[in-house]
Amino acid sequence: MARFPEPTTAAAVASACGGRLVGDAGAVVEGARSLESAGPADLAFAADAKAEKAAAASAVGVLLARSALGFPGRTVVEVPDPAAALASVLEAFLPRRAPSPGIHPTAIVEAGARVAADVSVGPYAVVGGETEIGPGAILEAHVVVGRRCRVGAGARLHPHVVLYDDVSIGPGTEIHAGAVLGADGFGYVASQTGLKKVPQVGGVEVGSGVEIGANTCIDRATLEATRVGDGTKIDDLVMVGHNCEVGAHVVLCGQVGLAGSTTVGDQTVLAGQVGTGGHLRIGRGVKAGGQTGIVSDVPDGASLFGTPHLPHRDAFRVHAEMKKLPETARLVRELARAGGEKR
Amino acid sequence: MARFPEPTTAAAVASACGGRLVGDAGAVVEGARSLESAGPADLAFAADAKAEKAAAASAVGVLLARSALGFPGRTVVEVPDPAAALASVLEAFLPRRAPSPGIHPTAIVEAGARVAADVSVGPYAVVGGETEIGPGAILEAHVVVGRRCRVGAGARLHPHVVLYDDVSIGPGTEIHAGAVLGADGFGYVASQTGLKKVPQVGGVEVGSGVEIGANTCIDRATLEATRVGDGTKIDDLVMVGHNCEVGAHVVLCGQVGLAGSTTVGDQTVLAGQVGTGGHLRIGRGVKAGGQTGIVSDVPDGASLFGTPHLPHRDAFRVHAEMKKLPETARLVRELARAGGEKR
Amino acid sequence: MARFPEPTTAAAVASACGGRLVGDAGAVVEGARSLESAGPADLAFAADAKAEKAAAASAVGVLLARSALGFPGRTVVEVPDPAAALASVLEAFLPRRAPSPGIHPTAIVEAGARVAADVSVGPYAVVGGETEIGPGAILEAHVVVGRRCRVGAGARLHPHVVLYDDVSIGPGTEIHAGAVLGADGFGYVASQTGLKKVPQVGGVEVGSGVEIGANTCIDRATLEATRVGDGTKIDDLVMVGHNCEVGAHVVLCGQVGLAGSTTVGDQTVLAGQVGTGGHLRIGRGVKAGGQTGIVSDVPDGASLFGTPHLPHRDAFRVHAEMKKLPETARLVRELARAGGEKR
Repeated sequence: MARFPEPTTAAAVASACGGRLVGDAGAVVEGARSLESAGPADLAFAADAKAEKAAAASAVGVLLARSALGFPGRTVVEVPDPAAALASVLEAFLPRRAPSPGIHPTAIVEAGARVAADVSVGPYAVVGGETEIGPGAILEAHVVVGRRCRVGAGARLHPHVVLYDDVSIGPGTEIHAGAVLGADGFGYVASQTGLKKVPQVGGVEVGSGVEIGANTCIDRATLEATRVGDGTKIDDLVMVGHNCEVGAHVVLCGQVGLAGSTTVGDQTVLAGQVGTGGHLRIGRGVKAGGQTGIVSDVPDGASLFGTPHLPHRDAFRVHAEMKKLPETARLVRELARAGGEKR
Repeated sequence: MARFPEPTTAAAVASACGGRLVGDAGAVVEGARSLESAGPADLAFAADAKAEKAAAASAVGVLLARSALGFPGRTVVEVPDPAAALASVLEAFLPRRAPSPGIHPTAIVEAGARVAADVSVGPYAVVGGETEIGPGAILEAHVVVGRRCRVGAGARLHPHVVLYDDVSIGPGTEIHAGAVLGADGFGYVASQTGLKKVPQVGGVEVGSGVEIGANTCIDRATLEATRVGDGTKIDDLVMVGHNCEVGAHVVLCGQVGLAGSTTVGDQTVLAGQVGTGGHLRIGRGVKAGGQTGIVSDVPDGASLFGTPHLPHRDAFRVHAEMKKLPETARLVRELARAGGEKR
Repeated sequence: MARFPEPTTAAAVASACGGRLVGDAGAVVEGARSLESAGPADLAFAADAKAEKAAAASAVGVLLARSALGFPGRTVVEVPDPAAALASVLEAFLPRRAPSPGIHPTAIVEAGARVAADVSVGPYAVVGGETEIGPGAILEAHVVVGRRCRVGAGARLHPHVVLYDDVSIGPGTEIHAGAVLGADGFGYVASQTGLKKVPQVGGVEVGSGVEIGANTCIDRATLEATRVGDGTKIDDLVMVGHNCEVGAHVVLCGQVGLAGSTTVGDQTVLAGQVGTGGHLRIGRGVKAGGQTGIVSDVPDGASLFGTPHLPHRDAFRVHAEMKKLPETARLVRELARAGGEKR
């Protein structure tokens, strides 16, 4: 599947990832594949003991592995972190296609927008007035950017991304198709005729080196800015409510939902479908397991699971006992009966 | 962030929200900010005791608060509901930008569509035949509206909204970017060659004054209409299955999912990530906590939590005991052992 | 709501679905409705005992039912599966509107794309180079298809669907509005400067007769392909992570999330909001109830519920005891107290 534009060698692979070559330096590498599918002209990687076992049985030609010891007679590139080495090799031999700079004739750039010269703006994209697009940025087909936005240098917006007015995206940040940044926060007050909308007049500020998944939504703030820090990675279909402050190098996996005004500290990792209450302070380096429901503030470094959330270790014990609960309860009723008989 | 187009005064703020001014009527207000960020030329609001404490320490110039008593020497606009007052002030001094009426030359309006004269249709929007767009409605860039749709007066569809055929939207309703109304309901019957699709030939009917969040999906009915009542507010990434009937003034928070043919009574509030089974009747004024899984009919006014759902009070007690379950179970085993020794 | 283009008769209805007519063969049928709304010129269906009761009280003119016995004097079409019969009748009398073939003048088809002659490409659609669109395929307005994609014969992509490069869709597959196939998988490795992206250079392969709901996301694989088998039905707002292999005739209900590299066996059904861990093997014919959190491998035919998942029967017993847990725990404390007194 991942075939390089032209064949390379094991030696070139080792050089690209800074690894130590063991075996045939001239072995031809035509592409990278999974261990299951790799053939003699393919590269594959083995990052753990299980994969090393699969590698031994694989027809792979050149292997990225922690050590060549288990693979006598084979060509191995030894690296401390095989997955990271794969990333380096792919970057070197399969560079991403970047559309050539230029504004497609069908793109609409409103008067007053400032677009750097080497930007690529795709077909049918729309860019609003007073917006600034930094050098090397890529706006793919059908992207809609509102007014007073800033898109940093080298940022990439995939097809159908929508930025409302007043959204700022840092350099090198990548946003996948269908994501919406800056839609109105979900803010209402009670009135005699029902709920009345609180105008959402703030914005969204996303740092540099951030990645945001397909169809993810980050709502604009009521007055200030909903913020996402540098290097943070957000998966598909995530919702970040208004006024949230998500730190740097945070990981939000698929379908996570943050209710409004919650802060998430740096390097915290929320697994898939985690939900949080609003107005919470979630610390730095927190880890929450899939579907955890975070209902109150969380200290730095905590590890959580369950709804309502518990420290991971407690949740583990509770769930182990829950499985035995029918048996335990039966025992309780027996004991109660026996006690009653004695009295 | 939320700077008014031109400065105003504390007196004008008080007048805009019907509040009682205490302090300097001429105090200049240049914009509205959070208590943390507000300076001497800013307005901020304090809606509860915690915020009032923060207000006392803030550099805010003019404060919307329930009472001026705790703020001697400061300029305060007293109002019964500071958040509602903020909404009124923002409406008065930061009116929403409405695109000027007119059909963009790149928009495609099929023959037979009836578009009122003062409608705004943005670039690359597409409107199908036999569709009616009411006066003052706004269709932003890239909106796609199918055939036989009705978009009420003053409704607003943000960029990339899709209405399939036969979708009706009431006056003043606002739909955020990427939302999809009228995709086929998820209806199949078993057949010898696998699942066979049941044609979904109904529509979607959304009332007036509704707000629908970004990338939310409301599926079309099998035969009749999936319905959303007046004044209902739906957050981002919500799914409303086919044949559902959602009442008036309902609140569906982010990532809620309603399976097909479920009815939700007026003024019910489902918090984030709540899911419901299909063919359920959920009453009026129900409240369900985040991630609740509603598995059976729910009476009016019930308060729920947990999966499968329990009355909130019961769920609270159960979760309190669950945390102690490992200890309780240990005690049971001790008692059982002690009982065995006595016998 | 579902009015046929022209009236038909009970006899024609019976013929369309292969049913046995009991009653007035010439009874006029103008459309199909729900039992609650149906009048004397309407068709409706009753698939179970509850619906049969409603049918007896309904004004429906012609009824699709398992037996005419309970409906003396009425016109009934007897069929073994009334819902399946309805599907056949709707297909016969309410055929789906297909746009006429042709490439809209505003569509952009890059040089090198191969588009069969009778394909329909809607306004503002964009098709990349080296992509192949099979005969009879329909790309609606604003669809964006990347390079090196294959769209099978008769496939239908609703408005705003995005296929990244290297996505293949089988014949007859239907993808609803806003769905995104082929966005980068969520793959990173730790580095000294934070998370480093692993290039996602694989693709997505979707089989034939698949249906994919609105705003659903299926990510591209790292090296090989994320796969969805023939006849599988995926609802709205579902996330399928990179490297997943979803089998044939699988059902993924709304808001399901599959973490990366998980396989799902044929005919498995995951109810709404189910989430799974990554790198799991979920068997064939598995059934998981709403919101289940699947945390480990699952054997063929298992029935699951809860987070972390349990066999359905165990989960049922556990939840029944959980409701009684406060009472049970009170009893334990009483017994402990009594035991202490005796000692």
